[in-house]
Amino acid sequence: MILAVDAGGTSTRAAVVDASGRCLGCGTAGGGNPKSAGYDRAVSAVFTAAETAVARVPRPVTLSLALVAMAGAGQTMSRRAIAERLTELGLRGEVKIEGDLLAMFHSGTDQQSGCVLVSGTGCVAARIADSRLELVSDGAGWLLGDAGSGYWIGHAVARAVVASLDGRGPDTKLTALMLESLQLERTGERIHGRPQVLLDLIEALYRLQPVELARFAPLAFEAGDSVAAGIVESAASAMAETLGAVRGEESEGPVVIGGSVAAAVLGAEPLLGAPLRAVLRDAEVIHVSDGLVGAAVLGLRRAGIPVDAIVFQRLHESVARSREEKLKTPAAPA
Amino acid sequence: MILAVDAGGTSTRAAVVDASGRCLGCGTAGGGNPKSAGYDRAVSAVFTAAETAVARVPRPVTLSLALVAMAGAGQTMSRRAIAERLTELGLRGEVKIEGDLLAMFHSGTDQQSGCVLVSGTGCVAARIADSRLELVSDGAGWLLGDAGSGYWIGHAVARAVVASLDGRGPDTKLTALMLESLQLERTGERIHGRPQVLLDLIEALYRLQPVELARFAPLAFEAGDSVAAGIVESAASAMAETLGAVRGEESEGPVVIGGSVAAAVLGAEPLLGAPLRAVLRDAEVIHVSDGLVGAAVLGLRRAGIPVDAIVFQRLHESVARSREEKLKTPAAPA
Repeated sequence: MILAVDAGGTSTRAAVVDASGRCLGCGTAGGGNPKSAGYDRAVSAVFTAAETAVARVPRPVTLSLALVAMAGAGQTMSRRAIAERLTELGLRGEVKIEGDLLAMFHSGTDQQSGCVLVSGTGCVAARIADSRLELVSDGAGWLLGDAGSGYWIGHAVARAVVASLDGRGPDTKLTALMLESLQLERTGERIHGRPQVLLDLIEALYRLQPVELARFAPLAFEAGDSVAAGIVESAASAMAETLGAVRGEESEGPVVIGGSVAAAVLGAEPLLGAPLRAVLRDAEVIHVSDGLVGAAVLGLRRAGIPVDAIVFQRLHESVARSREEKLKTPAAPA
Repeated sequence: MILAVDAGGTSTRAAVVDASGRCLGCGTAGGGNPKSAGYDRAVSAVFTAAETAVARVPRPVTLSLALVAMAGAGQTMSRRAIAERLTELGLRGEVKIEGDLLAMFHSGTDQQSGCVLVSGTGCVAARIADSRLELVSDGAGWLLGDAGSGYWIGHAVARAVVASLDGRGPDTKLTALMLESLQLERTGERIHGRPQVLLDLIEALYRLQPVELARFAPLAFEAGDSVAAGIVESAASAMAETLGAVRGEESEGPVVIGGSVAAAVLGAEPLLGAPLRAVLRDAEVIHVSDGLVGAAVLGLRRAGIPVDAIVFQRLHESVARSREEKLKTPAAPA
């Protein structure tokens, strides 16, 4: 058996799989990204997700390898710290840490080369050759990049609303949606030349961490006016540029797409995602929800077990089934 | 005599003037913006600038009023805290606090209505009627607005360089200038699909406070390629929108322009500042360097002393002369 863990910013997923690609149990925990959650909480999230997965596996449990996929792989995490915690769950082999992008790609395909685009809170694309990152574009974080991400869209929404309220920008339905979501009311009052509600809004938004502006991204898909559509269109163009920077004319292999924002942009009205669809035109496009299957693929291969189309398919299906069962029969609380 | 203080983000200026508009002495100190410098340091900066100004005035010194201009006037500062410190300098009357925008406007004109546009680290415009803020646009801070400001330009420069280094954006001379200013070298090495120098750059930039990105704004005026020109052009358009939002067709009075970024954009190649120049076309445009003269204008009027064109001219000239003298004969260190 091997343990696969996909540690993301908002949640961490784990699965125990056998050499045939069958998933024996899976589990989840909170955010496990050491950058956003902090080192200790990331280790705890990996442990908790693994513990929940192992609890569903018939005894005795012996894990010959643990593969942990996370952003900024290995730059900040100590494999030893994770290994120490996982020993009590039956780990008798090594801990390997791989990048989240690589796991996301391998969640979509048993091939070892192609491209991946992930747009969630952040946005990044990569070209993968022989299961290695060959070329990466963006992923530069909220301040310097992540163009087309949830943060980027939410930030554009916030700026558009502020500009509209102070007369620089056009009226937009985003304003009413944003004020409602923050429970702010338009009073019509003005203070020192500014609408009271604008001052309240600015104060409320600066109280957030900048990255939390991502929570307003859904409004861009909801408002249905030209300002909102322009933001979604720009996000699609930005994603297209990011993917285009890694996917050359002669690029081989599928394009795996992950992250809720990429899905929303591609799912928006046909015209809106046009720039992104143009870049994807000739590619085999595969949508994935996270990197858990990919972490298992990488884990099996690292353990010397070949993953062909049949094993991949089995992994894919049995991980999905195991997740469904988990939803139906939640484990008893500890 | 009255004391006028203009408390800005990077420096604080003070002048003692008499009822005829003659400047008797002026002084400077560090940043006096309570938001960026903090409450205590802002009070100290006001005191130090005032102390230096008063030291140059023939004894006995009796100040019948102090007018302090600062951003977010009176929202955070206690007039009493300032008054207590200024009493030891000879203040026998009240402390009045006014907005920095109002002081900036009155530094340029003896009229009481018109518009003002300030673009420095931030960017804001206002319509002023009867010496009150009637309508304000932008000034929403680095995250939500300040479109066309030094921060905004520096941020655009940083994003353009990051995009260029990871292949999303066009090559630009901004890259070499920015790497040089941060003493980073291109090694040609790649790590996990990214250029080493890009990782170094991202790390260096996230170590700064976001607003510190304003320090890269000058590169946009220096690089001389189309990427840089596009950033300056966008900044000019944003400023034009901000000014346009407060300056109606039938707006009366002059347009006072302050801040180093507004001056640089208007001074850039004729074509670059075109959108801003279009909005300014029919206006009497007056450039000012800060709000010190305006703080004195407001102070005299608050003390019941009319400021006509002759008094304004005297203020303007004598404050300038006093500043020059101060540069020539610095006061002995305390």
